[in-house]
Amino acid sequence: MADSTATPQPPLGNVLVAQSGGPSMVINQSLVGIVKEAKACPKVGRILGALHGIRGILNEQFVDLRLETDETLEAVAATPSSALGSVRHKPSRRDCETVFNVLQAHGVKWFFYIGGNDSAETADLLAEYAASQKSDIVCFHVPKTIDNDLRENDHTPGFGSAARFVASAILGDDLDSRALGGVKIDVIMGRNAGFLTASATLAREKPDDSPHLVYLPERPFSPDGFISDILEVHQRLGRCVVAVSEGIRDEKGLLYASKFTSEVDSHGNMQLSGSGALGDALAALVKARSRLRRVRADTFGYLQRSFPGVASATDSAEARKVGEAAFAAALSGEHASGSIAIHRVPGERYAVSFDVVPLSAVARETRSMPDEFIAPSGHDVTEAFYQYARPLVGELPRRGFLALSPA
Amino acid sequence: MADSTATPQPPLGNVLVAQSGGPSMVINQSLVGIVKEAKACPKVGRILGALHGIRGILNEQFVDLRLETDETLEAVAATPSSALGSVRHKPSRRDCETVFNVLQAHGVKWFFYIGGNDSAETADLLAEYAASQKSDIVCFHVPKTIDNDLRENDHTPGFGSAARFVASAILGDDLDSRALGGVKIDVIMGRNAGFLTASATLAREKPDDSPHLVYLPERPFSPDGFISDILEVHQRLGRCVVAVSEGIRDEKGLLYASKFTSEVDSHGNMQLSGSGALGDALAALVKARSRLRRVRADTFGYLQRSFPGVASATDSAEARKVGEAAFAAALSGEHASGSIAIHRVPGERYAVSFDVVPLSAVARETRSMPDEFIAPSGHDVTEAFYQYARPLVGELPRRGFLALSPA
Repeated sequence: MADSTATPQPPLGNVLVAQSGGPSMVINQSLVGIVKEAKACPKVGRILGALHGIRGILNEQFVDLRLETDETLEAVAATPSSALGSVRHKPSRRDCETVFNVLQAHGVKWFFYIGGNDSAETADLLAEYAASQKSDIVCFHVPKTIDNDLRENDHTPGFGSAARFVASAILGDDLDSRALGGVKIDVIMGRNAGFLTASATLAREKPDDSPHLVYLPERPFSPDGFISDILEVHQRLGRCVVAVSEGIRDEKGLLYASKFTSEVDSHGNMQLSGSGALGDALAALVKARSRLRRVRADTFGYLQRSFPGVASATDSAEARKVGEAAFAAALSGEHASGSIAIHRVPGERYAVSFDVVPLSAVARETRSMPDEFIAPSGHDVTEAFYQYARPLVGELPRRGFLALSPA
Repeated sequence: MADSTATPQPPLGNVLVAQSGGPSMVINQSLVGIVKEAKACPKVGRILGALHGIRGILNEQFVDLRLETDETLEAVAATPSSALGSVRHKPSRRDCETVFNVLQAHGVKWFFYIGGNDSAETADLLAEYAASQKSDIVCFHVPKTIDNDLRENDHTPGFGSAARFVASAILGDDLDSRALGGVKIDVIMGRNAGFLTASATLAREKPDDSPHLVYLPERPFSPDGFISDILEVHQRLGRCVVAVSEGIRDEKGLLYASKFTSEVDSHGNMQLSGSGALGDALAALVKARSRLRRVRADTFGYLQRSFPGVASATDSAEARKVGEAAFAAALSGEHASGSIAIHRVPGERYAVSFDVVPLSAVARETRSMPDEFIAPSGHDVTEAFYQYARPLVGELPRRGFLALSPA
């Protein structure tokens, strides 16, 4: 054993991972990125997973993720939704104390919370409390949101795959609309930001491709303008496919959906998904205010974040990498806390970097679509949006069209 | 030229093809099956396509399908929805006279109408009128319906692919439900028959897989039973995913959706799709009659018949073959009219035959799920249904699950 000069060091502490908020098609990639790195790292003792996010920590419902085989982990990585379970619980300051004490009791030195801006806020509250206790617990947020509304990020894991679902769905719906005509309203997720609704445009190739109109939370929604826009398109094409964000707002910033629903979730946010109310109300409006007979509405709903087999390859790879980057940053000893942000590297070819940003920079507030992505009409996107979003979504299914030469 | 003994015969007449009713993911396979056979057949002169079904014939909107290249035809075959456009117009007897006259004027000897039972009825009316005029026009119906409710058929082209979408969607929704719990109601197409809703079960592998409850048009829907079924499942699993047919009916056979909508289509059928009303009403019912807080509804809508990239390989191949079989039967000279029915060949391996049946046997009325496919509880399917439906749908996406060993 003459060549063995280094004595094996004991692990420095345990890892804890949890998932939070709305699931995505690739959130398990981030989980697996962290767990596989942790398995390979001699500084790490136990690798704990909390079931259903912060709730699992408060209730000490932990699983041993070191026991998961690489084969299982890879299968889970390719599976939509949150494998550890999720939660929509915004912890109180008192909850944070409890969480902190549980983490200490379980020897947790590195905590990773995968989720959106609410999850970043939780991690931030916990990090603040840990600092006040002079603890060396490291708290990292790992970004995830199909809405793509996290600040500091060029885009977020989960968005590209949800956008791929939306673009594919609209591509099919365009073909349906060509066959039967009429007005079709498709309601798409995105409470505060129009990125996902805007992605409905990504399958467009021909001038008459759907969607013909796009309504985003970033521009005030006017029922009068909506009707006249639809009538103009229908007159021109004999059909009209409309992509509408669930988060459209009136001139005063009031959610248009609030006229039809009143349920709120545990974060105090109005329930927009899991209901067809907005789409049905818009279809009824078109029927009442026009002579158009065939008016239909679909609300894409939860399929946007959970449909299997649709994930974008780029999104999947990046979701894995944000997990790995968070692990590396947390273990580096250089940060007491932080979040990983995806930044785009300027250049002709699509490239990104994964950088540490402060939790406070992504927690709480969200971001909207920049003006440069929204057409002056207010009901379409710009070429800049295409350039931005196309690399995230990947190649979409190809369509064939008959030449339809008159006989 | 001594070896050329046969003088080329002039064509015997022209072919006309049209598509009708709700599109499917594979209806263009049937179109392409007919057109490619017709292109290769010396008896056929022109190959005409009518735009938007019977409406295109009444308006003499014809395209020359012989000009379509094989490359285009194959790309179109793999594209969802009706490439010639579709229509929901039930022709009057007077319309049939006009159609007959147009067909004669254009030298049409073989007419193919791809669609459901309404389209078979149109073909039947036309065939009757042609017979009364001692015409030799041959009228063939080519089956298509995602509802799978055509009589005489073991199953119909379009169903397998729509069922594959539904099973995939539920598979994803099950993962979503595992992450966040609560009650989830998914409303699935199928006006008269529960086949498509029943297909939600096809992704089940584990005992707690979704859907946990299945409500079909074939069994009277009782709100009381619905609530108590959901409460039982939720108590047991902490969550409940419910597959509900848009066509559920009360004890008197009245469509449950009729309580929430009153729009009818041009066939006099109540509009069930393109609205979230039924799902929202059922979610409101559960909220009002239980203490469950997280109750959501998605209506899968038109994505079930148009989503690209999800078509079943078996369904695609059979849709092509019904087109080819209709062409062969029509050109055989043995039938003045007919429809092609898919029959299953008994045996261990899945096999089917394509047989000519009279138009009257598939026109007008529809069929329901047989009792042997419905569990005695009335809210589940049987093993016989699995055996029946699994070969039609093909291999579904695989999921990975963590072992979740307690730490």
